[in-house]
Amino acid sequence: MSEQIHLTVTGMTCGGCERAVARALQRLDGVTAVQASHEAERVDVTREGDVPDRATIVAAIETLGYVVPAHTDAG
Amino acid sequence: MSEQIHLTVTGMTCGGCERAVARALQRLDGVTAVQASHEAERVDVTREGDVPDRATIVAAIETLGYVVPAHTDAG
Repeated sequence: MSEQIHLTVTGMTCGGCERAVARALQRLDGVTAVQASHEAERVDVTREGDVPDRATIVAAIETLGYVVPAHTDAG
Repeated sequence: MSEQIHLTVTGMTCGGCERAVARALQRLDGVTAVQASHEAERVDVTREGDVPDRATIVAAIETLGYVVPAHTDAG
């Protein structure tokens, strides 16, 4: 069963940033789709059940220098 | 002995892109420094000898959706 996780992500400032985040997340096992918006400062990840877990997703984003503020899961 | 490799990279459109490329490359074994410029469409990588090899560096950049045109090593 697929499930969505919504994250607030700051530091993306253009479409190239959105694509970089999306491409990095799409490489993780379990991720089936990614929508990233620098204007909304938001990343929506569709995953299989709860894989990958939130920490893995956050680590992949932060590795690239973007920021996931603590306790700010978007809606 | 450290060595520099210079690549033409297209698709970076802001400072966030530059940082994403730099962060991804800095994680590769052997990379000691990275300078990325979206305006110059150029990435300079300082590495230990010839590690990592050019193909590994190019793959890390292209994984994020940026493009390294064939046969266009920058000066």
